[in-house]
Amino acid sequence: MKPRIPAAPVIWAAFLSAALAQDTAPHGIPVPAGASVELQQAIRDWPWRALSALPAAPQTDEEWRNVIEASDEQRASTIPQVLERTGTTMRRDRIADVDVHHISPAAVSPENEDRLMLFVHGGAYVFGKGDAGTFEGILVAARVGIPVLSVDYRMPPDDPFPAAVDDVVKVYRTLLETRSPGTIALGGTSAGGGLALAAVHEFRQLGMPVPGAVYAGTPWADLTKTGDTLFTNEVVDRVLVTYDGVLAAAARLYAGDHDLKDPLISPVYGDFTGFPPTILATGTRDLFLSDVARTHRKLREAGIDADLHVYEGLSHAGYLVSPDTPESRDLYREVKAFLDAHLD
Amino acid sequence: MKPRIPAAPVIWAAFLSAALAQDTAPHGIPVPAGASVELQQAIRDWPWRALSALPAAPQTDEEWRNVIEASDEQRASTIPQVLERTGTTMRRDRIADVDVHHISPAAVSPENEDRLMLFVHGGAYVFGKGDAGTFEGILVAARVGIPVLSVDYRMPPDDPFPAAVDDVVKVYRTLLETRSPGTIALGGTSAGGGLALAAVHEFRQLGMPVPGAVYAGTPWADLTKTGDTLFTNEVVDRVLVTYDGVLAAAARLYAGDHDLKDPLISPVYGDFTGFPPTILATGTRDLFLSDVARTHRKLREAGIDADLHVYEGLSHAGYLVSPDTPESRDLYREVKAFLDAHLD
Repeated sequence: MKPRIPAAPVIWAAFLSAALAQDTAPHGIPVPAGASVELQQAIRDWPWRALSALPAAPQTDEEWRNVIEASDEQRASTIPQVLERTGTTMRRDRIADVDVHHISPAAVSPENEDRLMLFVHGGAYVFGKGDAGTFEGILVAARVGIPVLSVDYRMPPDDPFPAAVDDVVKVYRTLLETRSPGTIALGGTSAGGGLALAAVHEFRQLGMPVPGAVYAGTPWADLTKTGDTLFTNEVVDRVLVTYDGVLAAAARLYAGDHDLKDPLISPVYGDFTGFPPTILATGTRDLFLSDVARTHRKLREAGIDADLHVYEGLSHAGYLVSPDTPESRDLYREVKAFLDAHLD
Repeated sequence: MKPRIPAAPVIWAAFLSAALAQDTAPHGIPVPAGASVELQQAIRDWPWRALSALPAAPQTDEEWRNVIEASDEQRASTIPQVLERTGTTMRRDRIADVDVHHISPAAVSPENEDRLMLFVHGGAYVFGKGDAGTFEGILVAARVGIPVLSVDYRMPPDDPFPAAVDDVVKVYRTLLETRSPGTIALGGTSAGGGLALAAVHEFRQLGMPVPGAVYAGTPWADLTKTGDTLFTNEVVDRVLVTYDGVLAAAARLYAGDHDLKDPLISPVYGDFTGFPPTILATGTRDLFLSDVARTHRKLREAGIDADLHVYEGLSHAGYLVSPDTPESRDLYREVKAFLDAHLD
């Protein structure tokens, strides 16, 4: 039996841990019988919190720093164990003045020998500094069998937009000095998925060649409160729970004085002409299901080869929150097959 | 400006018309701002009904017949206008003792000259007899530019399962006498989408070759109350509203003494090995979103080329209920592109 991978702490798990957990889902919706038994069990075991029990969003930079530090510390503390159990190795580096992690799988799959996943972590554009942002990069390296270069991009409160996009551009530009764009996949989940899409918009504006493929896991493609499932899946999504509070506040903190509908902030509002083939993933309970579906439609309307995968009963980034479920393994099989079909 | 196509009457619109309509959505969820303005307007104009205002399911065969007759009469009455405005022509026929409609578009697109869509209508396996079941077949013929053969399959209360599946098999077998399976697409929406999938399971069991492609529009792939979105999208879906009542009763009426999980009744429980390429469509508000997503996963797990399209803010079969929306036109463009890519 494979060693279990410790679950990724919920994006702001440490932040929420002060809230009182309860045993049953406050929304009263049955555990989804069509999900895998593993995912059903994870949902049953979830420390549900009523909407009224959620903490308020941080109000000041100082409050943000405290919340971020507590969350990142918890996330980073699990990483050595994740590396050990997946047989991956990780090394810090700096490329073009940007902090990065090189993540190497125990075995690179033969198809991926000359390929690389340029990875951008999630965390609402505020969480995930340093090792705290490497969990999915490690999972991708191990399950897709591909070397991963994870960008430890700058974030608010110190470095709001466009620092994150600029950092991805700097690393990508350096990569292009030694390899062809078709050998590079760009990917990430949540804010990472949104940042990957935003970075491609920026590559296009700068006249740079686009990477060979994009993996956008439940991308935060719209930082305004627009997506239909932000409303229909409120409370139903066990991970994000609601857009009001931390998410909305993080969006404002990240955007600073910029328009939230700037395509480099909310990539769904951009022009998807010339995008590379893109694989998208979400779940029926995902607060961002609408962001994902709308991005998929924009890609298709631009004539782009874009695949959408929707998992039964999965909340936002549920494949990271419950990484030992068949749903999670299946998603990375899909990512691997997609990269095999589209990368050089 | 193109003539507007009259909206498809809601599946059991005549049945529901006795219920008191109200101006605003009882669920209090905002009109989805990310949907097209046309779809937003259709949602605003919708005759919303509270859950408590929905009529109870028919109890006897006699009650079912009355309800079906009223609904089908209303649906059939719109068809001459639909034919006129789409420039299609329709002719009744019988093939292998099964009633069918030949539907011809004003212009067959060059790619589709030697192709045919074998069409199975929706209507919860009880509604849509005769002309009442031809609305989407006409839309497909006009928008995909393909000749359509619509199967007027037998239904309960007189002819429960497996009559519908048997009728599709009989017509398909006859088609195979004069054309290769790769030139045939099999498609339909809702119960029609489910029946299309069930028919392919039956073709495989009978050792018949499968058609070149399948179009499964929000298929009723599971007649048990299992899908997660049957719960999460209850009341949110403006078309079906709830699974309890008419839908659950129609499922029991159709299945008769058979197990609801028989793959020929609930195709999601079948083995999808050897299926043809399949295109699936649904919406974020669709009560059957889970049925569609679960079917997509089963197809993908079997290694089948399967494309999933999810439309923002769309309820069950919203592309038929609001056929003049960009979402509806976009879906049939996707279907056309998919058939072009996969049919001989």
